[in-house]
Amino acid sequence: MPVFTEYSSSPRDLRVLPSFAPPLPRLSSKFEPEPGDEKYEVVIVGAGPAGMMMHLLLTRYGLSDDSVLCVDAKPEVLKSGQADGLQCRTLEVLKSLDLADEILTQGCQQWEVAFWDPSTHRNADTGKVPPGIERTSLVSEVRVAARFPYCVTIHQGRIERILETDLLRYSKRGIQRSTRLVNVTIDEDGDPEFPVKAQLEDANDGSCRRTIRSKYLVGADGAHSVVRRSMGLKLQGESTNHIWGVVDLVLDTDFPDIRRRCAIHSAAGSVMVIPRERIPTGEYLTRLYVQIPGVVKADNDQEEEEEEGKGEAADKSKKEAKTRRNEVTLESILAHAEAAFRPYTIKPKGRDAVDWWTAYQIGQRVANEFAVHDSEGVNRVFIVGDACHTHSPKAGQGMNVSMMDSHNLAWKLAYAVHDLSANANAMLDTYHSERHRIAQDLIAFDRSISSMFSGQIDPLHGGITHEQFQQVFSTGNGLTTGCGVEYGGSCLVEKPDTEDDITDNLYPIQGTDYLAGILQPGRRLPNVRLKRHADGCKWDMQDDLPCTGRFRVICLTSSDLLDPSGKSATALRSLASMYEHFPPVVEQIVVHPRLSKDFMWQDIPSQVKKWSEMRFYSGYEMDGVQDVYAVYGVDPDHGALVVVRPDGYIGLISCLDGTTQVENYLRGCLKYT
Amino acid sequence: MPVFTEYSSSPRDLRVLPSFAPPLPRLSSKFEPEPGDEKYEVVIVGAGPAGMMMHLLLTRYGLSDDSVLCVDAKPEVLKSGQADGLQCRTLEVLKSLDLADEILTQGCQQWEVAFWDPSTHRNADTGKVPPGIERTSLVSEVRVAARFPYCVTIHQGRIERILETDLLRYSKRGIQRSTRLVNVTIDEDGDPEFPVKAQLEDANDGSCRRTIRSKYLVGADGAHSVVRRSMGLKLQGESTNHIWGVVDLVLDTDFPDIRRRCAIHSAAGSVMVIPRERIPTGEYLTRLYVQIPGVVKADNDQEEEEEEGKGEAADKSKKEAKTRRNEVTLESILAHAEAAFRPYTIKPKGRDAVDWWTAYQIGQRVANEFAVHDSEGVNRVFIVGDACHTHSPKAGQGMNVSMMDSHNLAWKLAYAVHDLSANANAMLDTYHSERHRIAQDLIAFDRSISSMFSGQIDPLHGGITHEQFQQVFSTGNGLTTGCGVEYGGSCLVEKPDTEDDITDNLYPIQGTDYLAGILQPGRRLPNVRLKRHADGCKWDMQDDLPCTGRFRVICLTSSDLLDPSGKSATALRSLASMYEHFPPVVEQIVVHPRLSKDFMWQDIPSQVKKWSEMRFYSGYEMDGVQDVYAVYGVDPDHGALVVVRPDGYIGLISCLDGTTQVENYLRGCLKYT
Repeated sequence: MPVFTEYSSSPRDLRVLPSFAPPLPRLSSKFEPEPGDEKYEVVIVGAGPAGMMMHLLLTRYGLSDDSVLCVDAKPEVLKSGQADGLQCRTLEVLKSLDLADEILTQGCQQWEVAFWDPSTHRNADTGKVPPGIERTSLVSEVRVAARFPYCVTIHQGRIERILETDLLRYSKRGIQRSTRLVNVTIDEDGDPEFPVKAQLEDANDGSCRRTIRSKYLVGADGAHSVVRRSMGLKLQGESTNHIWGVVDLVLDTDFPDIRRRCAIHSAAGSVMVIPRERIPTGEYLTRLYVQIPGVVKADNDQEEEEEEGKGEAADKSKKEAKTRRNEVTLESILAHAEAAFRPYTIKPKGRDAVDWWTAYQIGQRVANEFAVHDSEGVNRVFIVGDACHTHSPKAGQGMNVSMMDSHNLAWKLAYAVHDLSANANAMLDTYHSERHRIAQDLIAFDRSISSMFSGQIDPLHGGITHEQFQQVFSTGNGLTTGCGVEYGGSCLVEKPDTEDDITDNLYPIQGTDYLAGILQPGRRLPNVRLKRHADGCKWDMQDDLPCTGRFRVICLTSSDLLDPSGKSATALRSLASMYEHFPPVVEQIVVHPRLSKDFMWQDIPSQVKKWSEMRFYSGYEMDGVQDVYAVYGVDPDHGALVVVRPDGYIGLISCLDGTTQVENYLRGCLKYT
Repeated sequence: MPVFTEYSSSPRDLRVLPSFAPPLPRLSSKFEPEPGDEKYEVVIVGAGPAGMMMHLLLTRYGLSDDSVLCVDAKPEVLKSGQADGLQCRTLEVLKSLDLADEILTQGCQQWEVAFWDPSTHRNADTGKVPPGIERTSLVSEVRVAARFPYCVTIHQGRIERILETDLLRYSKRGIQRSTRLVNVTIDEDGDPEFPVKAQLEDANDGSCRRTIRSKYLVGADGAHSVVRRSMGLKLQGESTNHIWGVVDLVLDTDFPDIRRRCAIHSAAGSVMVIPRERIPTGEYLTRLYVQIPGVVKADNDQEEEEEEGKGEAADKSKKEAKTRRNEVTLESILAHAEAAFRPYTIKPKGRDAVDWWTAYQIGQRVANEFAVHDSEGVNRVFIVGDACHTHSPKAGQGMNVSMMDSHNLAWKLAYAVHDLSANANAMLDTYHSERHRIAQDLIAFDRSISSMFSGQIDPLHGGITHEQFQQVFSTGNGLTTGCGVEYGGSCLVEKPDTEDDITDNLYPIQGTDYLAGILQPGRRLPNVRLKRHADGCKWDMQDDLPCTGRFRVICLTSSDLLDPSGKSATALRSLASMYEHFPPVVEQIVVHPRLSKDFMWQDIPSQVKKWSEMRFYSGYEMDGVQDVYAVYGVDPDHGALVVVRPDGYIGLISCLDGTTQVENYLRGCLKYT
């Protein structure tokens, strides 16, 4: 199959530079816009974490500056405030982009969460319950199998800078800044191949208005998304009556858990403590979310514009909330925090201790559609990140879900643009079906945790109990770490057929504890530590699934691998003859269980070395290496075939003799010749 | 104590950038050269790994572009060939500079070494011994406790690029390239404060000759060092009669261990296989060291210039060797390699498979002195890296020992320049005493391994046995990994007094298996994994010893920590009152054994939180965390105090009640007020 691949420099010059991701092959003809006619294959609006991730992924997949444009109204990256939390799955994805190191090393790792509640224990000397709070429990932050068993807090501006620095290795232009989207329409009559029409202007003075056309457009333009409004999509949900202040500062305190994430419920209100990274002065930042007492009536709205007070329908309670939110000062936030921390004291440490602060009203809203079709039903305009869902920062999700939206969509777009797919539009359909469900789940969780968190722990007077709160917190761990995300069935996810298949051993996975590592179509492939055959190197499975847009077929061979006519050898030969029919975007990983004897390359089918020389592993337990079969729920006597999508989510699991199933699945995703 | 600290930008702007190392305080007045008068505090000649490391460390320690200059004759960093191996200790040091990530992730990790020897096993079918080689053993590459239990091969040009990229965060000027040193002299009469006079010129055409003066000068100008010659220092040693070819290439082969480090001894000659990193084409590089058969007489020389044929005294055998070396071609190297690999086949894979090749004669030489004094006995000129020792590449040491020379010297120079030291010149004296010994040990090892490696495994005819070879290889593991380096006693290393002290429990360390982790003054502090009190984070001890020029006092408290009048609390209070008398370059790390009950900050001496809030750990075994006391050889009932030098080597170990010893040691290193 003829393919076109573009490299930016000669291999020799590249040898002193950090490695570059190999671009995807392109089956469509090279995109060469005509001079004077501003056209792109993809336009991205907004360069926060969601937009930057989208831009970076598309350029890594091989889209050139001619092909993709990303604009942003802001003149530069953030310098303070906003989102700060990276969850386990996001860390795994950043690692798959080789962008995790600085974050893991220099960010603030959170391994534990402490719960503080009103004191109930009597002092041994006085016989009285002392006023204030006491620690009621201390638990692990992450209670699922994750490659990095902690979450990390770090300045959003640093994340954006890390993404942008990497982007500039692949894109000469980078982000086009100070450029604002005025509106976007789908206009199929003017130019059916480039039906998306976007009007841009200079963000400073509204000058230099121009119209550009594209095949696809991605709105990553935040909660007040112009793309969403232009497309007539609605945010649905409600804002609650709780107002919170948030402040990033260096603290002087005797509170013992200031370096742990804490949920503090005190009689004087609730505070969430988020430890943050060390700053150049050598001090450590802390973020406090502080409940501002008082009640305003909850309201339901269709659009956050109304909440902003623009809509005529804005009712009294909304206005009250907005007024009260605007009345919040740094001093009032700190005063409420001080009251909640008693008997411990907190105060800003020294001059310039406060880095950033704001006040907000909790709201949870999600857009009804994440994609808009043209008249032919082709997905043309997408919204990602805050443009399609907003929620409270309590669960530390904002930046994570936003980047993961782009991570889900980018490879599907690249496959469409590069014409690699058998049915590009069906793949693009899964963006809405997969991510809309996740957004809804998260918002439901956020609503319950936020409302419980805003309530007092006061079981005696009808409030929630500490146990109730912690229960909700724990249940959500799969969701909040990102490791429990499971996509539904589609052309990209083939769920096990029936219960019967499972009981009849037609399906090779045993067990259902997916959060502990058992494989399940629609969930991400959990990491395992293996030992490589070629060099004895101990290696992480996920490092064989870098984010390069490739599908992976993982062959967990059975204990008959050394038998040339066994089912393992048969499967490997059959897979090898299949790969030739697809574009070169399918990579093979092979794992073997403990075998009857030591062996060398010549003792096993030659296809293993040909297709996976450096991706062939022993998968049984030894020093520093895991029992992969046990972790994944695969019987070593039977083995399994697992197809992993380019974003690391499992598309299909079959028995070793299910190579036809694998082929059919891939034929639904890829061109076949 | 008043200190002067310079920051290059405001803390706020720094928040989106990677963290910067905090500079050392400066007690001497700020260095401000007079205009028109080219003077520096330190001049570095050469910007290979040794010179670049020296420059980077000095700038990180706080020396500005006014204060330090680094010149190099080459116009840019390397693009191919030369050194490629990074040993365990070097990886630890690069990690302490936060520069290891790309190397660990993108380099080639070597976990195992295979030994291949002439076949001796009869074929079961034919009853004959087949011609060629067979694998005789497969062992771990690293057999000592190391944070990274493997070595890494990666292009030297990448190491230099990584160091230079980081350097440019601290130095605006960076390396002054295309600038050659003509000569250097010590001229105390002209300017006693800046007695080192160096003449520089344009490396391209010899134009722009200029003279600069400095307090200190470091020659990192390689095997043909102008600094060494100008100072009249001699390289002593010998070159052997063995000639080797080396080639970096992409191979097409059925040899099963091509991705492992291999020592191949065949009847047709010896080959060493060094797997290398993946290159941008997706292929993997391999380096082969190939013995070129034939014998020339060994010679002893005082200077490598003679070997170069410049000296009149160059004798016939030297000329023969040189002639033969010059006759080696790529084709002959490959032909010899092919013969040694039989029955396996090797050939270059495709066009442009060969990246680089050369031929060399093994030689081991070391300079008699590593430093030159002025008439007052003050160390003024130093040589580091290849300028003071050359050896064969077999042990993979070149780049490592060179960078470690600079790592040993740089902080001592910075202390001298910043006037932080009680006796700067005595500290500078230890550069020669510590590094000269290591160079001699390495050369002795290299000589034995090289000569054995060049010999045939042929015990029947008086050759060495496989067991003899592997024995030498194993014994050297402490040396070659860098983890077994032990410096002798000096003002910076206080060895345990006598055997009596040890048996009388006046010395707190039990055990002598230093390569497994037992502490010993003069050796580097081995890494351990701990759990931090403040946040429950699991953490590596070595990450609390970043390469920032600070001394660390590690207090391994005893099991009486919760007793306010116990020896642990007493030691902590006594240490805290001592720190105030020193410049702020002493940091405290505290570890506690399993205690009788859970505790909070208020249950232990307040000095722990004040001096080591984020460096206070539990040191007993639990999930993913080690028993630090057992690893280090410390009895939890007695505890210990350990002082670690800025380069990570242990300076002093005492009992918990030995705070006076600690103070005396530090008073020998630091200003005291």
